[in-house]
Amino acid sequence: MNAEKIPDIIIGRLPVYLRALQRMADNGIKTTSSQELGEHVGISAAQIRKDISQFGEFGKQGTGYSIAYLLDKLKEILKVNRRWEVALVGAGDMGHALARYQGFVNRGFQIVMIFDNDKGKVGQKVDSFTIEDSDKLVERVKSAGIKIAMLTVPAPAAQSVADKLVQAGVKAILNYAPISLNVPHNVKVQYIDPATHLQRMTYYL
Amino acid sequence: MNAEKIPDIIIGRLPVYLRALQRMADNGIKTTSSQELGEHVGISAAQIRKDISQFGEFGKQGTGYSIAYLLDKLKEILKVNRRWEVALVGAGDMGHALARYQGFVNRGFQIVMIFDNDKGKVGQKVDSFTIEDSDKLVERVKSAGIKIAMLTVPAPAAQSVADKLVQAGVKAILNYAPISLNVPHNVKVQYIDPATHLQRMTYYL
Repeated sequence: MNAEKIPDIIIGRLPVYLRALQRMADNGIKTTSSQELGEHVGISAAQIRKDISQFGEFGKQGTGYSIAYLLDKLKEILKVNRRWEVALVGAGDMGHALARYQGFVNRGFQIVMIFDNDKGKVGQKVDSFTIEDSDKLVERVKSAGIKIAMLTVPAPAAQSVADKLVQAGVKAILNYAPISLNVPHNVKVQYIDPATHLQRMTYYL
Repeated sequence: MNAEKIPDIIIGRLPVYLRALQRMADNGIKTTSSQELGEHVGISAAQIRKDISQFGEFGKQGTGYSIAYLLDKLKEILKVNRRWEVALVGAGDMGHALARYQGFVNRGFQIVMIFDNDKGKVGQKVDSFTIEDSDKLVERVKSAGIKIAMLTVPAPAAQSVADKLVQAGVKAILNYAPISLNVPHNVKVQYIDPATHLQRMTYYL
């Protein structure tokens, strides 16, 4: 495996394969083909074979892939064969929705702390969490060794919170604020901005 | 302009440029350069010039871009120089957060109806909306001529709702359900799945 050389675009497809394979496994399916997987995810069988072959030989010609084996391998490659602790910053509507979202734990993630800078919210409960003061963010995140954060604060606050997260040792930020963040090169950012996603589609309408 | 030939990856960057330019305009800035815009969005100046030049000549060598002019042009290209009506399906936590989200209207979108198949939710209010019965979805969306929908239903329900949306004439779906959708080629789907986004980053940790 020559992980450093794998293009980002291939890495981006692996979680989609993982999700589809997990769904097949949950439905009791034991083996699949690149053709079948491709139909589930809307990607060509050739592309899937090429992507997966970057990491080694996982399937046998003619017999297809063992789903359990491929799941294990993909989880290992993506490092989600463990549970990552996640800090959530911003206890607004989106923060609440994410805090209550059931889809993280079985995919490698667990929100463990929630921050807000609104003193009126600090101390309130969201699901099983107590909202903590953003003033404590750096100290709390650093001492817990948390490497992943989700950012659901308003755009004007996002960069300064991102700076704090970086200071606290966070290396991966899922940013819901509709603004591009400036972070050091060793920190990854993924963006979720529904208006941007919608605007990608209106072009084609 | 040879719109049909523009690669999807370039179209995908235009909303990010639009968002950054709008932010500059909101801050009273009148002109910018590909260098400056690049620093805001984390994309090289050369790439930005190349992307924008696909659609014509918008800047002058040395004087940079007029932000107001480029905003107008980008909105025109992305067809968000109008307001699109959007149907939201799924009035759970995420649906509620989206219904209350203030960031759509000034970027070309307005949620106008919300559906859920839970009879206990039908008739309840979310913000200014009354949740409608999913049984009425096809009829209501079709008669309103709505082309864009957001899907925030659980994964097992997502494909059948997508089928209904397609039947109703929807051409663009923003799918929050953690599952790949099968839709006809003339229907666009964008995916928002936070666990997938997180898994793209753990690879690098």
